[in-house]
Amino acid sequence: MSLKFKNTKRIEGLDSNVWVEFTKLTADPSVVNLGQGFPDIPPPLYVTKELSKATTINSMNQYTRGFGHPSLVKALSCLYGKFYPNQINPNEEILVTVGAYGSLFSAIQALIEEGDEVIIIVPFYDCYEPMVRMAGATPVFIPLRSKPVDGAKGSSSDWTLDPQELATKFNSKTKAIILNNPHNPTGKVYSKEELQVIADLCIKHDTLCISDEVYEWLVYSGNKHLKIATFPGMWERAITIGSAGKTFSVTGWKLGWSIGPSYLIKHLQTVQQNTIYTCATPLQEALAQAFWIDLNRMDDPECYFNSLPEELEVKRDRMVRLLESVGLKPIVPEGGYFIIADVSSLDVDLSEMNNNEPYDYKFVKWMIKHKKLSAIPVSAFCNSEAKLQFEKFVRFCFIKKDSTLDAAEEIIKAWKKQKS
Amino acid sequence: MSLKFKNTKRIEGLDSNVWVEFTKLTADPSVVNLGQGFPDIPPPLYVTKELSKATTINSMNQYTRGFGHPSLVKALSCLYGKFYPNQINPNEEILVTVGAYGSLFSAIQALIEEGDEVIIIVPFYDCYEPMVRMAGATPVFIPLRSKPVDGAKGSSSDWTLDPQELATKFNSKTKAIILNNPHNPTGKVYSKEELQVIADLCIKHDTLCISDEVYEWLVYSGNKHLKIATFPGMWERAITIGSAGKTFSVTGWKLGWSIGPSYLIKHLQTVQQNTIYTCATPLQEALAQAFWIDLNRMDDPECYFNSLPEELEVKRDRMVRLLESVGLKPIVPEGGYFIIADVSSLDVDLSEMNNNEPYDYKFVKWMIKHKKLSAIPVSAFCNSEAKLQFEKFVRFCFIKKDSTLDAAEEIIKAWKKQKS
Repeated sequence: MSLKFKNTKRIEGLDSNVWVEFTKLTADPSVVNLGQGFPDIPPPLYVTKELSKATTINSMNQYTRGFGHPSLVKALSCLYGKFYPNQINPNEEILVTVGAYGSLFSAIQALIEEGDEVIIIVPFYDCYEPMVRMAGATPVFIPLRSKPVDGAKGSSSDWTLDPQELATKFNSKTKAIILNNPHNPTGKVYSKEELQVIADLCIKHDTLCISDEVYEWLVYSGNKHLKIATFPGMWERAITIGSAGKTFSVTGWKLGWSIGPSYLIKHLQTVQQNTIYTCATPLQEALAQAFWIDLNRMDDPECYFNSLPEELEVKRDRMVRLLESVGLKPIVPEGGYFIIADVSSLDVDLSEMNNNEPYDYKFVKWMIKHKKLSAIPVSAFCNSEAKLQFEKFVRFCFIKKDSTLDAAEEIIKAWKKQKS
Repeated sequence: MSLKFKNTKRIEGLDSNVWVEFTKLTADPSVVNLGQGFPDIPPPLYVTKELSKATTINSMNQYTRGFGHPSLVKALSCLYGKFYPNQINPNEEILVTVGAYGSLFSAIQALIEEGDEVIIIVPFYDCYEPMVRMAGATPVFIPLRSKPVDGAKGSSSDWTLDPQELATKFNSKTKAIILNNPHNPTGKVYSKEELQVIADLCIKHDTLCISDEVYEWLVYSGNKHLKIATFPGMWERAITIGSAGKTFSVTGWKLGWSIGPSYLIKHLQTVQQNTIYTCATPLQEALAQAFWIDLNRMDDPECYFNSLPEELEVKRDRMVRLLESVGLKPIVPEGGYFIIADVSSLDVDLSEMNNNEPYDYKFVKWMIKHKKLSAIPVSAFCNSEAKLQFEKFVRFCFIKKDSTLDAAEEIIKAWKKQKS
């Protein structure tokens, strides 16, 4: 092989990926998969029916507008117009992308320059760091810190940013902060006060905010999702990212969107037209139609934006009880469809596992092998320096049908019996 | 607006796009659209039926393997195994991407470094140049040159590379050549001898070949498509790109693939996992099923790989006659679904048009406005220096149903009458 044919510098060291690694490990169908974040409950029937319908129309199988199918950007502008103080221009302030992943990529490539710094809150959805590095910028990390919880149930609200510490991360090189709200993997839903701290710093330091809000609808009783872009002075500097996969339980459709002012979105559009040009038409058309259905019943309990979190809250509470039953102290999530727990108290003998890996990687691989139950190690969501702080935690996904949760329960109960 | 919020250097000057511009101009439904390359004939019914079927299966609406849905990479490896002397490893030698566009992007980002040179043959599919520039490399252009044709019909085979001139473009900085075969917009199908010249130079100068073969099945009587990757010494250095959109007349599905040796493909995989992670599952599953149907009848006339070129050859010949009837000398394409013609002999008065644009841009905009017929200016496929050489040509797309071609014929005949 020619030595000339090596990878480019921009992707140097960016070849490992937790999803690629753990998807392989769970290919065995006998493994109960609470790992990767995708539902095994069916998506709403009207959503998949709209896809069947769209593909019968010839034009819906051909190229559409590059920056977003007309009916979809119209639906998105209508939907989000309800949450912003301003109207959203469908053609200039929205970009439809290949999943929220594609939105993150186009925002970072469009706006983050070599030499810039980008603040990332730890733990973080794993692609943030390599995407920032691929743009030639430097990630600057700040961890969520948890208050010690004595006796009482742990909650994702115990995990907070220290405002003083956050302020020290901003400087003249800081181009952006990436926010994830609701937060994966902890389930944290940022309060108004917490968001205001971030907004104030962004405005003070003239910094962009890339706000990944893919779990925006999945917020549980007593919590409310707020969009940082609606805070005064923030529309001007925020890119807000949403996801069809998380909104309608169709992660395999790979559609997402970025919303922001036209002078930012136009640069994301330039990236899009030089990377993939346009997203799949039949999926965009079906998604648009699904949005119209739920847009017309936003206040009804059967609106999917209301019914899904209600359904998930029951599953969340079940997972909490299940994890507690084996002596774990799960961090009860305020939003999203994950729950994390410190598993070190289970005292599993991991001596047979590869010693070069963090504790949680060893634990999850051991659990897949010996218990046929999978999860995701939380240190996968950490920069290398922070792995030690989080490596006792693993993440379980609970957007799963009852039979899957039953199977997990059986495994965990048998495990408990074996131990006692 | 903050001055910090401008585009990054990597996309500087890459914001204009012929598809964005001309798609807008043809939004008027009264315009007969022979512009952008998409079929208005329906795709095969079994293809869209497979999509309807896939979406009824819950798992087919969720994430699949990042580098390609298992059933799809298996089908692709089976299909292309018939054309290569080597077997194609479905997991390591194939990457499924968001259209051929996504394959071009990931290949270029993965393998083309700042400071590299990339040879591009003019005219070229318009995204090649900005993609190379976005990677920080320098495009080096070489034009196809046409033999003067006296009396006889012009053919895309008259357009050739000068082997001596091509040799001068290779040097120690040359990382790759981008080949498009069959060629858009001319319809040229490279002969064995022509490909051997390119292969020899690639091997001599240790250069990659990115071979965009999206029109691989669309080759007309008397011509044969050859894959440069099957030439001795070329598998090792070629990335061959295909397209579901062009293969099954579903451009809106936005699925493509790259095939090559694992030590090249693995770098494209790294780009993919840091840009979009994975492609849409239901579309990949439907495409896999469609491939199995045609794979099992490759020698039958009803196999779509055989029936579509047969159907298109009739349309090509009709377009040739139609353009000749108004005194044009179209270049008869050997492959693809476009036909180009020098329109300067029509002597249209373009004085009302914007004088800062190339002749063909003015001509097409004039034709859309006054004749309600659209096409694509060939200079859109040229670097700025070469625009003068090609600006008398426009490209017509003929993968259109008879009623669309009838409407175009009516317009052209009325035009002719008006002139005479």
